[in-house]
Amino acid sequence: MGIVLKNILAVLPEGHQDVVKETNIYIEDSRIVAIGTKPAGFVADKVIDGKDRLAIPGLINCHTHSYMSFMRNVADDLSFMDWLFGTIDPIEQQMTDEDTYWGACLAIIEMMKSGTTCFNDMQMNIHQTTKAVKESGMRAVICRGLVGSGDDEAGQIRLKQAYEERDAAKDCDRLTFMLGPHAPYTCDDAYMRIVSEEAKKNHMGIHVHLSESESEIQQIKEKYGMSPIEMAVQNGLFDVPAIAAHCVQITESDMDILKKKNVSVVTNPASNMKLGNGFAPVPAMIEKGINVCLGTDGAASNNSLNMFHELSLLTLIHKGVKKTPQCVSAKEGFRIATINGAKALGLEQETGSLEAGKKADIAILNLNTPSLTPRNNLIAGLSYSANGSEVETVIIDGKITMENRKVLTLDEDMVYKKVNDIIVRMGLDKKEY
Amino acid sequence: MGIVLKNILAVLPEGHQDVVKETNIYIEDSRIVAIGTKPAGFVADKVIDGKDRLAIPGLINCHTHSYMSFMRNVADDLSFMDWLFGTIDPIEQQMTDEDTYWGACLAIIEMMKSGTTCFNDMQMNIHQTTKAVKESGMRAVICRGLVGSGDDEAGQIRLKQAYEERDAAKDCDRLTFMLGPHAPYTCDDAYMRIVSEEAKKNHMGIHVHLSESESEIQQIKEKYGMSPIEMAVQNGLFDVPAIAAHCVQITESDMDILKKKNVSVVTNPASNMKLGNGFAPVPAMIEKGINVCLGTDGAASNNSLNMFHELSLLTLIHKGVKKTPQCVSAKEGFRIATINGAKALGLEQETGSLEAGKKADIAILNLNTPSLTPRNNLIAGLSYSANGSEVETVIIDGKITMENRKVLTLDEDMVYKKVNDIIVRMGLDKKEY
Repeated sequence: MGIVLKNILAVLPEGHQDVVKETNIYIEDSRIVAIGTKPAGFVADKVIDGKDRLAIPGLINCHTHSYMSFMRNVADDLSFMDWLFGTIDPIEQQMTDEDTYWGACLAIIEMMKSGTTCFNDMQMNIHQTTKAVKESGMRAVICRGLVGSGDDEAGQIRLKQAYEERDAAKDCDRLTFMLGPHAPYTCDDAYMRIVSEEAKKNHMGIHVHLSESESEIQQIKEKYGMSPIEMAVQNGLFDVPAIAAHCVQITESDMDILKKKNVSVVTNPASNMKLGNGFAPVPAMIEKGINVCLGTDGAASNNSLNMFHELSLLTLIHKGVKKTPQCVSAKEGFRIATINGAKALGLEQETGSLEAGKKADIAILNLNTPSLTPRNNLIAGLSYSANGSEVETVIIDGKITMENRKVLTLDEDMVYKKVNDIIVRMGLDKKEY
Repeated sequence: MGIVLKNILAVLPEGHQDVVKETNIYIEDSRIVAIGTKPAGFVADKVIDGKDRLAIPGLINCHTHSYMSFMRNVADDLSFMDWLFGTIDPIEQQMTDEDTYWGACLAIIEMMKSGTTCFNDMQMNIHQTTKAVKESGMRAVICRGLVGSGDDEAGQIRLKQAYEERDAAKDCDRLTFMLGPHAPYTCDDAYMRIVSEEAKKNHMGIHVHLSESESEIQQIKEKYGMSPIEMAVQNGLFDVPAIAAHCVQITESDMDILKKKNVSVVTNPASNMKLGNGFAPVPAMIEKGINVCLGTDGAASNNSLNMFHELSLLTLIHKGVKKTPQCVSAKEGFRIATINGAKALGLEQETGSLEAGKKADIAILNLNTPSLTPRNNLIAGLSYSANGSEVETVIIDGKITMENRKVLTLDEDMVYKKVNDIIVRMGLDKKEY
């Protein structure tokens, strides 16, 4: 199958930054085969007219919990520990496998409709999530959230399940897997060591929550006499490619560890504000040379999986915090939401930018929209004024998964209905009415 | 003309908060005539099926500069004074009357498409703005930005123009007028007094920028030995109903003045962050009992006029700043974006909530959208997860101005084209490409 995006404005990498140029993009099977001139022998089965359109690399959501979408808006205005242990945990106790499937479908629809083509998911039921990913055509990196202690058999069982689930999804090359020790306050040091050893042995990366709330810092300090970052490095978590979500409450020396061990940090501005955790020191991390990428976190703490919303937060809040309008520019933000995410997930050869040879993971935006008018500085438009609804067509792995804002791979109305049914069954539908 | 919204979920006021209920809303001519039971003699010329839909009072954007929309993304990552005097001012020098018209049209389209039904505009050409407002069916409060000094004839001429322009627009009752002394650093004390006296004499409100940047505070301190708020109260600005934009850099005693003089404060979170001015002390102002309302500021400093984006910022950032997840709740935020805005503009008898007797200023959202699924706590959905594109139909003053996301009153594609032409003419189109 050959697709050509004809005479389209596109965000293209040029050295260490992105530029906007009019060009042609040629796609064959799953990959971009050329940008600019038509390659010999290329046959277009489909031509997408680039008039008034902008092609961008699909955004990469580096930290979310897709199943949680059915819990959107169930628990607002609560502190982090009350939110997690008082509200979310009890809902998870009554959640079925099917619920996690519909939650993942809703998450994927929301992400696709706002230009995300790849997400990094920590979740509770890999079978159901991979099913949703396979059906939808999405790209994803998946891990099962692992909690446990060194002498607890349950932790070992979860690890075993994670492998079984991974192996069952081996037939889809849009899926890769990591190990997901949940956090220092839900995994003890011995369990962290077991998981690190497994990751090393199996050549897998690690996805972990670190230094999210002040109470976490305090708890870990009391238990181990060190910071969560120090606890993680000491137990081998950073001896494999690691991606650490949050890192809000971190010190200069924590940052030195993250940089030295090449850990990528996913910043989640909405979630960090919403749960009262504050602002991660993103400008300082960028200054240190840490690979910072962007995530929405789950819909229960954001409450949106729209990466354009997250990108606008990323490029606005640090200017406010540091009282410096030059802080985290539009162009920097856009790279954080794309290529930096691909690097963090070990996928920088495959996705994160529009380049010949890479997978065709592309969002096409309609420029005849108020938020992208006028057409003077489109990367600023993407970071500051777009809301995600400008995305009209999505191509993932060379396949068109959304066209004219209709998701082609999942039944949107069915998903909305099924998710609404879950909430009614759990008695959460009338809450706050 | 009678319109009925049949079996629709609606955000309705109940005492001092809003609740979501299923109901019928009856509209006759420009007003809501009943909510719930059909009034005697009501004839529906149009029935809007409320299935899977949510009716909300249209959002009220309490501080913007509509003409500036054609300058979206022209000046990013600059400090406030460099932004205003180094970039925006020179563009304004070459701007024609027609440019301000197309800018206002673009602003109105963007606002309507994201559920705003009323805006408070400080601008440079009332004739063109009122023309756009009249044609579009929007509701607006308009003032000409006045700059000058007591002994400067230009300031007097601008004031005279403001009246002439106001009088020329008297035939449209969707339009009301204020006087707009721009700011303490562009109007001297004598000019402020002249404007205040005029406002008193003519029973007009005042719309002013106050305490936006640290450099403003310093400048006014040096010149007058007091804060901008003190300078304003001393020169009579608060002796009429006043709405003060920004109020970022304010002290406890400034807040006491604002409360005592019943001044409404428009907070503009995106603009304040983007220009590096910081975060307004919104929770403290709410605590004091000040009427806080919400605005986007102009598209040159935001760069969006989407009030849903602004509402999400309002309800997120203060939780981050104060590290308190209970700060500025979803429900509080929604009232700030609606009824508080109506109060600030002296329009609380007319708009800002869905109530029988008020003008029918209504946005209808599609609930079959990922951001509003599931339907468990829809006001949280409006504040935290909606992005504005859920708005499907807009009714202003009893007329349908947008249907199925198509603006019925302005030619959208023509406006996008005209605005792009301005940018090409000014040579700003290739900037940053």
